[in-house]
Amino acid sequence: MNIKDILQRLEAGKITRDQAEQEIKALSYQDLGYAKVDFHRRERTGFSEVIFCEGKSIDHITGIISAMLKKGENILGTRVKEDHWSVLQDQFPGLNINKQARVFWQHNNQPPITESAIAIVTAGTSDIPVAEEAAITAEFFGNRVERLYDVGVAGIHRLMDNMEVLRSAKVLIVVAGMEGALPSVVGGVVDAPVIAVPTSIGYGASFNGIAALLGMLNSCAIGVSVVNIDNGFGAACQASMINKI
Amino acid sequence: MNIKDILQRLEAGKITRDQAEQEIKALSYQDLGYAKVDFHRRERTGFSEVIFCEGKSIDHITGIISAMLKKGENILGTRVKEDHWSVLQDQFPGLNINKQARVFWQHNNQPPITESAIAIVTAGTSDIPVAEEAAITAEFFGNRVERLYDVGVAGIHRLMDNMEVLRSAKVLIVVAGMEGALPSVVGGVVDAPVIAVPTSIGYGASFNGIAALLGMLNSCAIGVSVVNIDNGFGAACQASMINKI
Amino acid sequence: MNIKDILQRLEAGKITRDQAEQEIKALSYQDLGYAKVDFHRRERTGFSEVIFCEGKSIDHITGIISAMLKKGENILGTRVKEDHWSVLQDQFPGLNINKQARVFWQHNNQPPITESAIAIVTAGTSDIPVAEEAAITAEFFGNRVERLYDVGVAGIHRLMDNMEVLRSAKVLIVVAGMEGALPSVVGGVVDAPVIAVPTSIGYGASFNGIAALLGMLNSCAIGVSVVNIDNGFGAACQASMINKI
Amino acid sequence: MNIKDILQRLEAGKITRDQAEQEIKALSYQDLGYAKVDFHRRERTGFSEVIFCEGKSIDHITGIISAMLKKGENILGTRVKEDHWSVLQDQFPGLNINKQARVFWQHNNQPPITESAIAIVTAGTSDIPVAEEAAITAEFFGNRVERLYDVGVAGIHRLMDNMEVLRSAKVLIVVAGMEGALPSVVGGVVDAPVIAVPTSIGYGASFNGIAALLGMLNSCAIGVSVVNIDNGFGAACQASMINKI
Amino acid sequence: MNIKDILQRLEAGKITRDQAEQEIKALSYQDLGYAKVDFHRRERTGFSEVIFCEGKSIDHITGIISAMLKKGENILGTRVKEDHWSVLQDQFPGLNINKQARVFWQHNNQPPITESAIAIVTAGTSDIPVAEEAAITAEFFGNRVERLYDVGVAGIHRLMDNMEVLRSAKVLIVVAGMEGALPSVVGGVVDAPVIAVPTSIGYGASFNGIAALLGMLNSCAIGVSVVNIDNGFGAACQASMINKI
Amino acid sequence: MNIKDILQRLEAGKITRDQAEQEIKALSYQDLGYAKVDFHRRERTGFSEVIFCEGKSIDHITGIISAMLKKGENILGTRVKEDHWSVLQDQFPGLNINKQARVFWQHNNQPPITESAIAIVTAGTSDIPVAEEAAITAEFFGNRVERLYDVGVAGIHRLMDNMEVLRSAKVLIVVAGMEGALPSVVGGVVDAPVIAVPTSIGYGASFNGIAALLGMLNSCAIGVSVVNIDNGFGAACQASMINKI
Amino acid sequence: MNIKDILQRLEAGKITRDQAEQEIKALSYQDLGYAKVDFHRRERTGFSEVIFCEGKSIDHITGIISAMLKKGENILGTRVKEDHWSVLQDQFPGLNINKQARVFWQHNNQPPITESAIAIVTAGTSDIPVAEEAAITAEFFGNRVERLYDVGVAGIHRLMDNMEVLRSAKVLIVVAGMEGALPSVVGGVVDAPVIAVPTSIGYGASFNGIAALLGMLNSCAIGVSVVNIDNGFGAACQASMINKI
Amino acid sequence: MNIKDILQRLEAGKITRDQAEQEIKALSYQDLGYAKVDFHRRERTGFSEVIFCEGKSIDHITGIISAMLKKGENILGTRVKEDHWSVLQDQFPGLNINKQARVFWQHNNQPPITESAIAIVTAGTSDIPVAEEAAITAEFFGNRVERLYDVGVAGIHRLMDNMEVLRSAKVLIVVAGMEGALPSVVGGVVDAPVIAVPTSIGYGASFNGIAALLGMLNSCAIGVSVVNIDNGFGAACQASMINKI
Repeated sequence: MNIKDILQRLEAGKITRDQAEQEIKALSYQDLGYAKVDFHRRERTGFSEVIFCEGKSIDHITGIISAMLKKGENILGTRVKEDHWSVLQDQFPGLNINKQARVFWQHNNQPPITESAIAIVTAGTSDIPVAEEAAITAEFFGNRVERLYDVGVAGIHRLMDNMEVLRSAKVLIVVAGMEGALPSVVGGVVDAPVIAVPTSIGYGASFNGIAALLGMLNSCAIGVSVVNIDNGFGAACQASMINKI
Repeated sequence: MNIKDILQRLEAGKITRDQAEQEIKALSYQDLGYAKVDFHRRERTGFSEVIFCEGKSIDHITGIISAMLKKGENILGTRVKEDHWSVLQDQFPGLNINKQARVFWQHNNQPPITESAIAIVTAGTSDIPVAEEAAITAEFFGNRVERLYDVGVAGIHRLMDNMEVLRSAKVLIVVAGMEGALPSVVGGVVDAPVIAVPTSIGYGASFNGIAALLGMLNSCAIGVSVVNIDNGFGAACQASMINKI
Repeated sequence: MNIKDILQRLEAGKITRDQAEQEIKALSYQDLGYAKVDFHRRERTGFSEVIFCEGKSIDHITGIISAMLKKGENILGTRVKEDHWSVLQDQFPGLNINKQARVFWQHNNQPPITESAIAIVTAGTSDIPVAEEAAITAEFFGNRVERLYDVGVAGIHRLMDNMEVLRSAKVLIVVAGMEGALPSVVGGVVDAPVIAVPTSIGYGASFNGIAALLGMLNSCAIGVSVVNIDNGFGAACQASMINKI
Repeated sequence: MNIKDILQRLEAGKITRDQAEQEIKALSYQDLGYAKVDFHRRERTGFSEVIFCEGKSIDHITGIISAMLKKGENILGTRVKEDHWSVLQDQFPGLNINKQARVFWQHNNQPPITESAIAIVTAGTSDIPVAEEAAITAEFFGNRVERLYDVGVAGIHRLMDNMEVLRSAKVLIVVAGMEGALPSVVGGVVDAPVIAVPTSIGYGASFNGIAALLGMLNSCAIGVSVVNIDNGFGAACQASMINKI
Repeated sequence: MNIKDILQRLEAGKITRDQAEQEIKALSYQDLGYAKVDFHRRERTGFSEVIFCEGKSIDHITGIISAMLKKGENILGTRVKEDHWSVLQDQFPGLNINKQARVFWQHNNQPPITESAIAIVTAGTSDIPVAEEAAITAEFFGNRVERLYDVGVAGIHRLMDNMEVLRSAKVLIVVAGMEGALPSVVGGVVDAPVIAVPTSIGYGASFNGIAALLGMLNSCAIGVSVVNIDNGFGAACQASMINKI
Repeated sequence: MNIKDILQRLEAGKITRDQAEQEIKALSYQDLGYAKVDFHRRERTGFSEVIFCEGKSIDHITGIISAMLKKGENILGTRVKEDHWSVLQDQFPGLNINKQARVFWQHNNQPPITESAIAIVTAGTSDIPVAEEAAITAEFFGNRVERLYDVGVAGIHRLMDNMEVLRSAKVLIVVAGMEGALPSVVGGVVDAPVIAVPTSIGYGASFNGIAALLGMLNSCAIGVSVVNIDNGFGAACQASMINKI
Repeated sequence: MNIKDILQRLEAGKITRDQAEQEIKALSYQDLGYAKVDFHRRERTGFSEVIFCEGKSIDHITGIISAMLKKGENILGTRVKEDHWSVLQDQFPGLNINKQARVFWQHNNQPPITESAIAIVTAGTSDIPVAEEAAITAEFFGNRVERLYDVGVAGIHRLMDNMEVLRSAKVLIVVAGMEGALPSVVGGVVDAPVIAVPTSIGYGASFNGIAALLGMLNSCAIGVSVVNIDNGFGAACQASMINKI
Repeated sequence: MNIKDILQRLEAGKITRDQAEQEIKALSYQDLGYAKVDFHRRERTGFSEVIFCEGKSIDHITGIISAMLKKGENILGTRVKEDHWSVLQDQFPGLNINKQARVFWQHNNQPPITESAIAIVTAGTSDIPVAEEAAITAEFFGNRVERLYDVGVAGIHRLMDNMEVLRSAKVLIVVAGMEGALPSVVGGVVDAPVIAVPTSIGYGASFNGIAALLGMLNSCAIGVSVVNIDNGFGAACQASMINKI
């Protein structure tokens, strides 16, 4: 059952306009009052709704998970607050969790894994939590992921040594804090799209990731686009779209 | 008794200039030393004084409440600090409280409820605390409120489905964090004034609400004005003025 | 002829879905390639489309004016570039212009003038161009306007002397540069909504209007909302909505 | 002849290390003193070197064009200064130019045109120069381009009317100034990657594109990445990489 | 004994250059290694050294107090950290403290009190901690202080009622957060210098006092200068210099 | 004739309330429509109204000058636009002008010159225009001025050599761009108030005077307050108030 | 064994290209998965790898220390988190620690101490933690260090008294918060390079060190360069390079 | 004749204190009123005074040049305004000029050229004007300079090809705009100090060099310090100090 069907039945006079409206609504989201869970998103964008936990009360989060589980949706939650973990684990024992990356997930329908890979590259060890948010998200949506961590520009031979990983990827996510120079260097040696993720790693004039963000936006390399600071999730979504073409 | 009367008695020689001065002062505010409670504000602006709790010590807050209760004023306090709740509830058991919205209130004279409504709309579930500050404030001043939560632009059919709520309101308060795009979309489909409230929901380059604030100030839609980040209270005051015209 | 009619004819089988689509499109906007002139906006928002000239080439501007004139629309253009005036005046002799306010306008259907008034108040003489953008816009949409200029807070008796103008308005637009304090003072003495317009007047740490903008967003007065720096037009649109309630 | 060949001949003792070095260098770039023209870039990244004209003297620009023409390279120059046009047209009559988009280009080897398309969408008419920089760049590299201009969120029916264009594209470039909300709305209705380009269109608190940039970085939609303000060129390069997968 | 004496004895041959150097050093500061306590400051600037406690370890603070007490200096410490109070009170029972203002002080030589007064005015109750830092500092240096608190511009009659306090002061310190408009209004009605102190009171676009700071720097009133955000101490020092002329 | 007289006549019944209102208004300002010239300011603040020319049209400026000349006021205009000079000189041959400082002035009643002096000190030669705006303003209001230019901290012996000038002043204006360090050094060696004026001299990370402004606001010296960037006028007004105590 | 040797053996046919690759990699870094420890850095830059602890988990930190100890490297760790100290001290009893400076270190090969000295100078006592990070780092790499603390510009005689220390150093590190003026004054009196370190000491408009950073970048003195806010470590590295020339 | 001599004669009674003062002043600077030319600077810092032309009137500039020529000083002027060139060349035909770098210079005593070299490296061709300001300044002070231009990170083989230039320099100046990544890469492969110069080359989110500045301040490489945006002169001064050790 989808929207086109409903409209055809309306045109054919099988249902009234009011009935059509009700059916379309039921198809597309559930109104919990505090949230309108968007079941239609996967149809439109290829991704089911993901729970952004920041700023939500634990009651709202668990309510949304329950509603999605009932519909048989795959579950992914990001940016979980430290003190919400215990409730989540108690109430939903089926959830997988990664506290470093601050995400939880559960598959009801495991998607097939792609042959082509997304390479996820970090400048430093401190950037790993953001990289893992990206990696888990990408895997959640069925992508093969290649991790290449701690190959920042201050020791550029570490990057050069791993050129094969870079060159074989269909799309790359490059994660860096501080001066955020790594995407420019990577972008200069590959012919695949690079999605740059600035991280808030650094201090002083890093301004919680502004320095890295600006560096990446001004990259002199070709084929580099940027997402929000620490937004591993967003980078993985776009990379997944590209990887699945 | 009001200022005009006092001035006429001065002119008529019934009171001295010193007496006139004393009477006018007594009429208009009470000097607690640390605060000059403005009883005259309702006459000037239609709103009694509201207690902005941020930065005030608990002693100052309770002192102001006491002074206002003695005068029979309606009480509304906003931005309450977490650790002030217990003192407030102990000392003033008549107070209504909403911890999520960080407000307390008490009516001594319940104002009549308007027929026309203020619609309060949020982009996400995380914006609800700010929206509730607005909703409670609006209701405190006697307005009918219609809540429409979690209808952000990434799933625009959820908004389109509820056009009736939007179109029937006399004035709208639209609350959004992140990119703050919702007021532009709403402003494009209604012919009533839209008061946009940016929230500090988001991370990284949201800069605690700056991104949403700037988005709203630059709205390409007509009829949108903006208040401070997270300022549900201020939006409700202006909306109330408009709704009561 | 409107959208509802078209949909009913579609349902009744009088027109095909393709025909319905064409008719709805023709009803609502004209596609010039470089612009999609929105004839439907007045129906939705109460305002016809206004031409924001900044960044548009003179060819695009004249093309849009011509398209609107052919449809019999009222014309209003804002933020006109200095070197576009002569072409506009040559090509459209019917246009009224105000170079200080950088606007042009032409009525094909003069709207009736409201009884109630919008007060437009400035802190200084230098703020007048922005105030006039607001005043002309408000008058264009059929509002009565009361101007009160150069009553800034450094000589507060000038404001106090004109309290009657302030108090009799249904809604006020308060325009100020530098520290932008005037809306707070005005907001403290009236019970009507105040729409504050920061201007770029000032130097140094005024940062082209940021100081005034921030001052207004943080106003301690009740009932004040804010529009973009120098946005007299936007303030007038919202004021018009309120004034016409 | 490529690097691998040279290294094999070195290993085979056919050339000395010095000879190998010279050959590799000649293969990869030409040193003009003020510029090292990177002939090897196409091999690495799939794109030949492009001339970023900002800040370069006209002598340096013409020198680089001449060097590239001699090698038979395709020529693309961006961000041309107003007063450089006449010299460029005099000296290189074969150049195509677009002054609005500030680019020039010339093909020596016309690449084949892709079947799949890049959709280039703008919020307003004023955003067209940036969109055209993207469109010409994309076409220069052999991509089919679909233009959809002036469909901003204040009149969202114009966007809805053209859903087909949006949905049929393999990748989308969405160009917007002011509040930059369009990519979020587009990202919510398509399942292809969206590359958002903020423009410097706006005034006051748009801060020359910062408002749009922040809005796009904070997009609540999935699959949106961002490039620098006014960087139509960069968006086109990444879109081309994706479109050609 | 002072510098002039030492130099005369050097010239007269009564002491060697080395001796002169030693004597001048002993006269002027004591080197504690981690601090060079400046006993000479009072001679140069009229103020003895004051202990700025922010960022100093408790050991450094107590070491400096001890060194100053031994020299018989008056003691004033500002910006004390919450968890340093108990050590300070235990170790130096003679200290007066004010935790709200975060200062401690002790007189060994009580200066005489001036006849003329410094008026210290606040916009709100929340600004009192900063105002008290100023008031205590001013009194520490022997100034008479008049406090006038909670007279912000949203209820301007409270200010007008107390014009006498404003007009009788030799110099005024005006303390305000949020939009920081009060100094402009006060500066417009007095003929004495106004030292404006922005406070970090506010939220959202107050940016911890930036809005108030910018407002004050851009004051349209005459005779207003500004000190750092929350810098009651600095304002009091300059006010004291002026009050003692 | 002053306000007190008018009020007494009102109380005595010699005039009506309407007459009193008219008389008070006439006494205090003249309404030119585009400006309300504040003749009462001198009574309140000790300074007659000064014409801030930035953003005013030449017609408004000449209109205000004419109105003030008719009332016999002293004239001072600041921040004159380059292309207004010729009209001003033609129309008002009695004006003194200083183009470097961008000011004009004319005395109808020359005030007496003070015995005590204001020292005006600059860090560099490039700061002189701002210093001269201060110097001319101070002299306009009857102050003796001592100029000490180009004594910045990079050659601190130049400052030390002129300690006498610094120490003999009753109040100092210290003008500096770039890092703005001079007020801290001067403030450390004098016991008079220092008013610091940041200038927009510098480049790059001076951000048109922000670096100097921040440096001065954070001065570790005692007795330093700050005015807006390039605001020589404002510094002179406050200095004049202090110098005349 | 070094890279040159390996390449010669490759050329001589003694090893295969695969073997050469393995040998070079083993020579230069160890891949721990989460980190690629760069043993080759000392050869390239003169400094062994230093552990930047910010943002790293305690497991990653101890893993890297262990890997380095096994290779016999000297150990230096910076920016240690408060709650990591106990694990570090338990697990590696050989580590020296300085909690104020937040560093740990251990020598396996003590480098010889230089004859020439690096002078490390602070404006205040509160700047000492950053200065000590620099001092310990410099000593770790074998430099003689002269400390001169609390000689800020508000009491410039304290600096002048210690000119000998300043003048005898081969290179100077000058550490200051607040207005950051000290490097300019020091730079004006020495002929050796000055490396300026802004600190986050201050409040309000110091913006966590931005004021000091901007002041130092705009220094009018010659020979001053700047490192990141609170980056004592970076300053010491460059100073060590210069001191060892 | 130097200061020590003068002081000894004072001590010996050969001159009075007044005479001593006069002699010391004459020795060290010449007071032109608008400038105090610092002839003593070379003695203190190793560099004669350099004329920073920004913000100075042409009369002041020529006055300073004349005074310096009379004393036989070497002349260097930076940041010359476009319309000052003709006067300078007419009045001082002996001046060398470089308009691209905006500098003029003239030697009266040619310093000897160093054997060791300063390498000056740029990321792009557009950075050359800043690099030339550095190169000419360095040569003016007697340093050998190696130029290596247009070796930015997007084509990193161009840098790798020229490792010899990088490795043989005693100190490096690395000039880059946009993301400013080059100093990090260079700093990772050399063991000499790197002075990074951000340039204002770029657009949009480069914010006139802020992106590059922040990138360089946050460099993950060791031994990198930074000067102001576009400050080639300052980098050259420090590099010269280091190169001459």
